[in-house]
Amino acid sequence: MKAEIIAVGTELLLGEVVNTNTTYIANQLAHIGINVYHQHVVGDNDKRLENAIYQGLLVSDMVILTGGLGPTQDDITKEAAARVLDESLIIDKVSHQRIEEYFQQLGVPMSENNFKQSLYISNGEAIQNEMGLAVGCWYEYHNKILVLLPGPPRECEAMMDSLIPRLKEKTSMSLVSETLHFFCITESELANQLDDIIQQQTNPTIGTYAKGNEVTVRLTARAQTENEAKTMIYPLKKQIINRLDNYYYGSGDKLTLMSCLVELFKKRGKTLTAAESLTCGLFQAKIGEVPGASAVFSGGYVTYSPASKKSLGVPETIIEKYGVVSEACAKAMAEAAKIQAKVDYAVSFTGVAGPEPLEGHMVGDFWIGIAGPYETNAFLLHYPYRDREFIRESAVYAGEVALYRQLIKDSGR
Amino acid sequence: MKAEIIAVGTELLLGEVVNTNTTYIANQLAHIGINVYHQHVVGDNDKRLENAIYQGLLVSDMVILTGGLGPTQDDITKEAAARVLDESLIIDKVSHQRIEEYFQQLGVPMSENNFKQSLYISNGEAIQNEMGLAVGCWYEYHNKILVLLPGPPRECEAMMDSLIPRLKEKTSMSLVSETLHFFCITESELANQLDDIIQQQTNPTIGTYAKGNEVTVRLTARAQTENEAKTMIYPLKKQIINRLDNYYYGSGDKLTLMSCLVELFKKRGKTLTAAESLTCGLFQAKIGEVPGASAVFSGGYVTYSPASKKSLGVPETIIEKYGVVSEACAKAMAEAAKIQAKVDYAVSFTGVAGPEPLEGHMVGDFWIGIAGPYETNAFLLHYPYRDREFIRESAVYAGEVALYRQLIKDSGR
Repeated sequence: MKAEIIAVGTELLLGEVVNTNTTYIANQLAHIGINVYHQHVVGDNDKRLENAIYQGLLVSDMVILTGGLGPTQDDITKEAAARVLDESLIIDKVSHQRIEEYFQQLGVPMSENNFKQSLYISNGEAIQNEMGLAVGCWYEYHNKILVLLPGPPRECEAMMDSLIPRLKEKTSMSLVSETLHFFCITESELANQLDDIIQQQTNPTIGTYAKGNEVTVRLTARAQTENEAKTMIYPLKKQIINRLDNYYYGSGDKLTLMSCLVELFKKRGKTLTAAESLTCGLFQAKIGEVPGASAVFSGGYVTYSPASKKSLGVPETIIEKYGVVSEACAKAMAEAAKIQAKVDYAVSFTGVAGPEPLEGHMVGDFWIGIAGPYETNAFLLHYPYRDREFIRESAVYAGEVALYRQLIKDSGR
Repeated sequence: MKAEIIAVGTELLLGEVVNTNTTYIANQLAHIGINVYHQHVVGDNDKRLENAIYQGLLVSDMVILTGGLGPTQDDITKEAAARVLDESLIIDKVSHQRIEEYFQQLGVPMSENNFKQSLYISNGEAIQNEMGLAVGCWYEYHNKILVLLPGPPRECEAMMDSLIPRLKEKTSMSLVSETLHFFCITESELANQLDDIIQQQTNPTIGTYAKGNEVTVRLTARAQTENEAKTMIYPLKKQIINRLDNYYYGSGDKLTLMSCLVELFKKRGKTLTAAESLTCGLFQAKIGEVPGASAVFSGGYVTYSPASKKSLGVPETIIEKYGVVSEACAKAMAEAAKIQAKVDYAVSFTGVAGPEPLEGHMVGDFWIGIAGPYETNAFLLHYPYRDREFIRESAVYAGEVALYRQLIKDSGR
């Protein structure tokens, strides 16, 4: 089955908004073995959109459109699709009522144009939008399928997820993927170490990706059944993990190092906190992304200024003697936070995110401190040639790695 | 001038990575009046990539490729482009040396394949990569331009930025845009209020966009000169701001409400802190994104558990009597944080981010507290039908709005 994705919106063509929907849809289709051969972006223009839909239905078995289902005048996707299919637009009663209720609950006056969002294509099927107000649509004829998804990414993604079982029925091929996560290794070094395996391999395929501060390896097997595909992945996965044992920390599509770290703390019955200068709460915000993190994390500190470091319990003499970007300060911050929060482990971040150097240290230099039950350590990292955001994110990631390794080390005591 | 963007990488076709580069490039081109008519994604396949480049150079005046300049075997863009142009690849000495130095500085062993990143197309020009290791390339012939940019977004964006002056010389049309930011209004309500203006307007054009919790209006004027285009925007901007005065907070492409808030605190000579439960440091992390925020923000607290709220100074009786998701707790958190950090203003966040309800409150319910020099207030917000991430981000945004309005109000006293 050949699929095509058309993202609708002049804002995409002008680059005002990132086209995450095409990515998400393509990825979901890849997971169930449906090949995407074309990806387009079309502006909010009746004729060009009609033409794209018409061409798409000629060439591909399935056309998935995203965007242009909203309440405003430049939302034209349903109208254009209905014209191509020679259908009309009709009201979906469920969503019509939901729109009314939503505005009542929110206590905001509703403009009439919002009801446009409850329209769908006649002889098609309305698809409810669990994350928003605009209904989607599934339209099927002569072995062709047209799907309309909303534009806001959360809505598009949730609706796409809801269609997966139905889409799976349309393909006879099973495709199974698994993503392996590695830290503390560059993509080129990892590719080097796996070179012979990558060369030999055709099914499953091996893809390596650098994403932020980590590298992932994606194994994808195609087979007649899901079980068969899974069986093909297993030995390859084992071989790769064995070779890169020092760098591997887990597998899973939505796995993050932070979720593994929280899980590890839970398993070991330990608790943690953080004192953040450079990163200004970013490490803790990432903890908060993990559901159930409250089992191991009770709270922490953002100590941006020297004064707030002192309030936490960092001795004034340390700041005066060594400065805030120093091994001594990183250690003192972690130790003070550990005592204040009455926890087993504390991590601290202090460094130079830029744009200006600080205390004679280059932008991209930072110290991370780890205070644990047995010892307190600190280490210096450099990220030259990088911007503020990357440095802060790298610092957070390095802190996760350091805590993870410390906990593994301490468990062996 | 007609431009075309080709993003290269099987990971894009499979939806493993979001295609932010196309967005960025399209946006930068739109700003200087170069129209993008085609956007493609091509996998890491020699023949298909060669064909896409060949077709692109036939149809468009300029083809910008992004991705596939890296060190691994599946990085094939330079090779494919060289074949289409009947050129060879030659070493750029500057980047060759930079690659060597980078690995020395990092203290990581370097694999030989990294030098592949210093190659560029003969008779073209190497473009240095300030954010990474792979050089780009500019190749011009018979009024056609081929540009190769790296794939990692930071590198692609920085290199694209560096090419803007050169690209500007290639177009005779000036395009000026301005983005106006509005809070506390929905996109449909805003579009309604501006309906007559939007209907009449062709140049400048008016685009409305909902992005997270705010709505932006983008005005874009085309003219012979930049000054002429700017003059066209001014009266329209004034008319729109006058009509939506209650909701407008500023203009600028990279403007955020947080940067305005920090600026406002600076102007008024006030300081702030935060006590975050629900949002777990996210508000403070956003403060840290603003360069120079240390002038108004010294540090703050992540009080995730009831115990950590008590440590901050929230009376135990309040938590016992009203629970942590309550007006009283939000106020007490803000007041305690204000006292502890010795600042003028404090904001607090406490609520239910999900996935489970808490203390009988629905997911999406949260209280925000604001303690200032004159009064302490708290208010309840609901975000039904939303996920954890959206709720946390909405809470942070609502806190920014509340602080902004409180400071404006207090300045009038």
